[in-house]
Amino acid sequence: MIIILKPGIARKEETAVLKEIKALGYKPHVMRGVARTVIGAIGDERTHKTLESLTSFPQVERVMPVQKRYKLVSREAQKDATVIPVRGNLIGGRKFQVMAGPCSVEDEKQLMTTAHAVRKAGATILRGGAFKPRTSPYEFQGLGVKGLKLLAKARRETGLAIITELLSEQQVQLVAEYADIIQIGARNAQNFQLLIAAARTGKPILLKRGLSMRIEEWLLAGEYVLSNNNPNLMFCERGIRTFETYTRNTVDLAAIPIIKTESHCPVIIDPSQGAGRADLVACLCRGAAAMGADGLLIEVHPNPAEAWSDGAQQLTLEGFARLMEDLKPFIAAAGRD
Amino acid sequence: MIIILKPGIARKEETAVLKEIKALGYKPHVMRGVARTVIGAIGDERTHKTLESLTSFPQVERVMPVQKRYKLVSREAQKDATVIPVRGNLIGGRKFQVMAGPCSVEDEKQLMTTAHAVRKAGATILRGGAFKPRTSPYEFQGLGVKGLKLLAKARRETGLAIITELLSEQQVQLVAEYADIIQIGARNAQNFQLLIAAARTGKPILLKRGLSMRIEEWLLAGEYVLSNNNPNLMFCERGIRTFETYTRNTVDLAAIPIIKTESHCPVIIDPSQGAGRADLVACLCRGAAAMGADGLLIEVHPNPAEAWSDGAQQLTLEGFARLMEDLKPFIAAAGRD
Amino acid sequence: MIIILKPGIARKEETAVLKEIKALGYKPHVMRGVARTVIGAIGDERTHKTLESLTSFPQVERVMPVQKRYKLVSREAQKDATVIPVRGNLIGGRKFQVMAGPCSVEDEKQLMTTAHAVRKAGATILRGGAFKPRTSPYEFQGLGVKGLKLLAKARRETGLAIITELLSEQQVQLVAEYADIIQIGARNAQNFQLLIAAARTGKPILLKRGLSMRIEEWLLAGEYVLSNNNPNLMFCERGIRTFETYTRNTVDLAAIPIIKTESHCPVIIDPSQGAGRADLVACLCRGAAAMGADGLLIEVHPNPAEAWSDGAQQLTLEGFARLMEDLKPFIAAAGRD
Amino acid sequence: MIIILKPGIARKEETAVLKEIKALGYKPHVMRGVARTVIGAIGDERTHKTLESLTSFPQVERVMPVQKRYKLVSREAQKDATVIPVRGNLIGGRKFQVMAGPCSVEDEKQLMTTAHAVRKAGATILRGGAFKPRTSPYEFQGLGVKGLKLLAKARRETGLAIITELLSEQQVQLVAEYADIIQIGARNAQNFQLLIAAARTGKPILLKRGLSMRIEEWLLAGEYVLSNNNPNLMFCERGIRTFETYTRNTVDLAAIPIIKTESHCPVIIDPSQGAGRADLVACLCRGAAAMGADGLLIEVHPNPAEAWSDGAQQLTLEGFARLMEDLKPFIAAAGRD
Repeated sequence: MIIILKPGIARKEETAVLKEIKALGYKPHVMRGVARTVIGAIGDERTHKTLESLTSFPQVERVMPVQKRYKLVSREAQKDATVIPVRGNLIGGRKFQVMAGPCSVEDEKQLMTTAHAVRKAGATILRGGAFKPRTSPYEFQGLGVKGLKLLAKARRETGLAIITELLSEQQVQLVAEYADIIQIGARNAQNFQLLIAAARTGKPILLKRGLSMRIEEWLLAGEYVLSNNNPNLMFCERGIRTFETYTRNTVDLAAIPIIKTESHCPVIIDPSQGAGRADLVACLCRGAAAMGADGLLIEVHPNPAEAWSDGAQQLTLEGFARLMEDLKPFIAAAGRD
Repeated sequence: MIIILKPGIARKEETAVLKEIKALGYKPHVMRGVARTVIGAIGDERTHKTLESLTSFPQVERVMPVQKRYKLVSREAQKDATVIPVRGNLIGGRKFQVMAGPCSVEDEKQLMTTAHAVRKAGATILRGGAFKPRTSPYEFQGLGVKGLKLLAKARRETGLAIITELLSEQQVQLVAEYADIIQIGARNAQNFQLLIAAARTGKPILLKRGLSMRIEEWLLAGEYVLSNNNPNLMFCERGIRTFETYTRNTVDLAAIPIIKTESHCPVIIDPSQGAGRADLVACLCRGAAAMGADGLLIEVHPNPAEAWSDGAQQLTLEGFARLMEDLKPFIAAAGRD
Repeated sequence: MIIILKPGIARKEETAVLKEIKALGYKPHVMRGVARTVIGAIGDERTHKTLESLTSFPQVERVMPVQKRYKLVSREAQKDATVIPVRGNLIGGRKFQVMAGPCSVEDEKQLMTTAHAVRKAGATILRGGAFKPRTSPYEFQGLGVKGLKLLAKARRETGLAIITELLSEQQVQLVAEYADIIQIGARNAQNFQLLIAAARTGKPILLKRGLSMRIEEWLLAGEYVLSNNNPNLMFCERGIRTFETYTRNTVDLAAIPIIKTESHCPVIIDPSQGAGRADLVACLCRGAAAMGADGLLIEVHPNPAEAWSDGAQQLTLEGFARLMEDLKPFIAAAGRD
Repeated sequence: MIIILKPGIARKEETAVLKEIKALGYKPHVMRGVARTVIGAIGDERTHKTLESLTSFPQVERVMPVQKRYKLVSREAQKDATVIPVRGNLIGGRKFQVMAGPCSVEDEKQLMTTAHAVRKAGATILRGGAFKPRTSPYEFQGLGVKGLKLLAKARRETGLAIITELLSEQQVQLVAEYADIIQIGARNAQNFQLLIAAARTGKPILLKRGLSMRIEEWLLAGEYVLSNNNPNLMFCERGIRTFETYTRNTVDLAAIPIIKTESHCPVIIDPSQGAGRADLVACLCRGAAAMGADGLLIEVHPNPAEAWSDGAQQLTLEGFARLMEDLKPFIAAAGRD
């Protein structure tokens, strides 16, 4: 930790800070600069208490941590990229993976039609919400168990693996029974109890970025998964909340190289939630592929205008097939299959 | 709903939109303007499906809802202000209520010292975290049940009511057994399953605003409480996330008159989480009192420099006593006791 | 400056950094911590080149400045509050000052009616835009010189001082001839050439906060005024841009105590631009007064529905008179007249 | 315009609104819905006054514009893409254009070395700041005229066209004399007087997006250029300000397809300012190329660690050459040369 004192502090007040630094288990090291005295507090910031509380001393101007706060998710902890096996598909390896399907599972026909179509177009994983987090209690909340059963049926029929969202600690066992990948949504990205419960199922976890999550906080939320003995974590950027209103969210594609630098975990991009508009999805997918994402999570619906949730952002079956063709040169340019 | 068509749309394409509007249960009403054709879709937006999915038609430029999406929390539903009784204290009535105490419950001495001090200074409700949501899994996660028991002891000794945070659906019964008010934190503000579970205990709920929650979303999260048969909801503004780094968050004090206009529920301000700096707390409290807040939620600690969490933002016991004196004329100017 | 090296850096690479630090005029001081090596670079950050460019070395993880970057605007440079005389009114002193008037000057009748009304209600300074920065080139751009002349006439008739916005370096002399205070708007808050030109007129300057300006940047923009030999600077918070859409901007009232702590310059609040809604103005004014602002800048119009710009946020003459009455106890509670 | 009345409004109050709508030159059209009465106001929103001021009536809940506010920059006004000739290079055509060079022009050697290197690597336009907008008045403000002369010399020696920033209306003629493209920086993106002055020189204009500019506002700022008879406008996305601190700004790459949809003007991406970190530049360039940008604006310096401004974000000469190689397959995949 670095502690910056205010200018013109008496020696006695400096000593009080040094004493407190020692009391909290660090070894202080004083540097007298031109305009400020700076104290380096030497000690492991991850095993000791933070010194940020020192700003409660009036003589302290600022306290700055030196170490990164995340461990297990970091590249320092693991040089090689994590590759996650999901029913024979490897996420984070050479193959670019596409997860596609409806926002919500609505009925058997809608799901089966979509599953067969996305499989034919090249997707390997089927997405579909059975439990839906909705801004209003009066909106469709998902089919629940019935939705999970339909997903399982689609898996049997198409061979696609299943990704579906977990909303509640009460449903951890239930969802884990059906899902091949458990999705933690943006609104629950810092619901740490849910993260811990999901991690403990041993299933691969896709952790969406919260709407206003800094990358450091996202990595630390991921740390809750790895530190609960589940190494199969992937991060999913789905847009952050900004002042822009043309799109629903602002997709931060720079998150791809940043996560790749800071962490060994795979990165997936969700352009559907990100843009909130179907007409931008294809272009965002091209960018994601070019920038080194490990895969995509795309909403596809046989008839978006009558979708029970988020119709505006879902591709049609034809739109998805066209996108998959269109993406090929970009995936190749990025050195992926 | 209002549907705006793109300019120069053929009559056939317009008809397709009208047909879909009818299929979704609304009665369309066409207005031909100078530059655009606008369709009013008449029907109850809260019982029908949204028409926002119509933007998946290429001929549609924009879809705009007309109605407000919240019902039970709205002033339209209830003209009179909700007043919530908590162990003889009325929140939302004439008396300005102050909830104060440590960020985390650390041990008996810390809690009892603080409880007696804040009571003496005029607080009526004791805050204290027993379960703590922490950005990193390596930070102190709270004392758990032991913390709840200490809170109960402090209540017995001082007569203060207790507010404490609920983090997990698994702990709903446990927390409800000890708490007089259940706090839902900013990170869980759209954890709807937790909101529903908390609402069903029947205990008063304090719902913090999420870091990037629009006021409409906050009101709708509150709607999850009221629509689960719990009328005792209060909203707590604790700062939103912006680009500013001088403070931890940006306290949106305009939320006070907005919530008072849109809703009948009480509004509480948390300046400690909001600013993240103890030196700004007193001034924010003055603003909150002047602007018509129903109360405050303030972090107080006997020795902030050694606090186990968020030391930088906690007031000392003396600082809190001084603040309570300092606030009196502002509370009086706002017409409160 | 503090330079943090990446972990596991070879001594040779560390030496290269130390050499560069010396080349840039600083004296390096090495601290070997548990997880990272940290280098303190001793030297005046305001006279030397920044070391932030050191992050271009692959072995450097982060560079953090230690000093504050602003000088003349800071409390360290001047302990006493700046008090600015404007035609006999003192801004920043004991008296709480209210500047009020229409968004745009539209015609003589509109301006004179408003001027007399705001003066009668207690305002001491008349606001009114003659040159208007408009998002679209097709919107009303202000009356120009004719507007300035009407303002001068209103000053003669009422004795009110005049504040009006400067948009262009070409109009500096012209505006300075008529204005008692030159307003620099939010969109020009980092138009440094305009700031310099305005400063050199010697007139008091009101500097609005840019829509996405951090407080540090705002203070540094103010530094452009003071370092061009104009000590009469006041800061005006008018809301920052956030994700919230209920209000036009989010008024950051915490800016009041922050500016008061960091700087000696007066702080004015503009609730009209801030909220963009007349119905929130009165409540924001109460908060501003309570939190220690030195004054207010309020938009008032005889007939807001027919205003040529920003009608939604302008108070009626009666609304303004009511507000001035309503504010009295809050101004008194804050210890002002 | 669409005007939504509050629920339960008396017929008399509705009539007052209708009367005002007519007074402002629109024809009202009433639709009685289930929960609200909605009034369509028929008339050209771009030639009449806005009705947004109607929210000053207490019976009005909301007013929503129907038309887009921009004209000349819009795709509706011009179906074909604008192609801008700059010394024989076509911007917005089939060829992907790269503009590269130092943040600031520092001296002859620095500039010539860079110019030759970027030309050899494939750039066609040389960037370099002669007038620099700096957050602090104590930072290097650019070489001024001397810098412009060096740029002209570099043009003579290498054949590269020149892009440089204009900061001041006073320097419009001077900068136009040397520049092939006039750059308007992010801080001046809504300095409308500067935009008008720059437009009138007839030189091509590169308009950076302001730090907190919505796309609509950016297009409207561009409208100031086109409506001043200068058709040669290109938009440059350089990152917006968000809460994320890992990067200096958040590059909104979705701006590429949005500008391409809404407008006929070329789009350039500046990844250097956007990320503020050299190590992310290459990856952002890949994304920009894949997503259909017309070109890039990249900062390159022979020795970033000693750069006089923004060293952290400048590529080395080798780094730039590598990037140009690396980009080829992505440019090809996007169907560009």
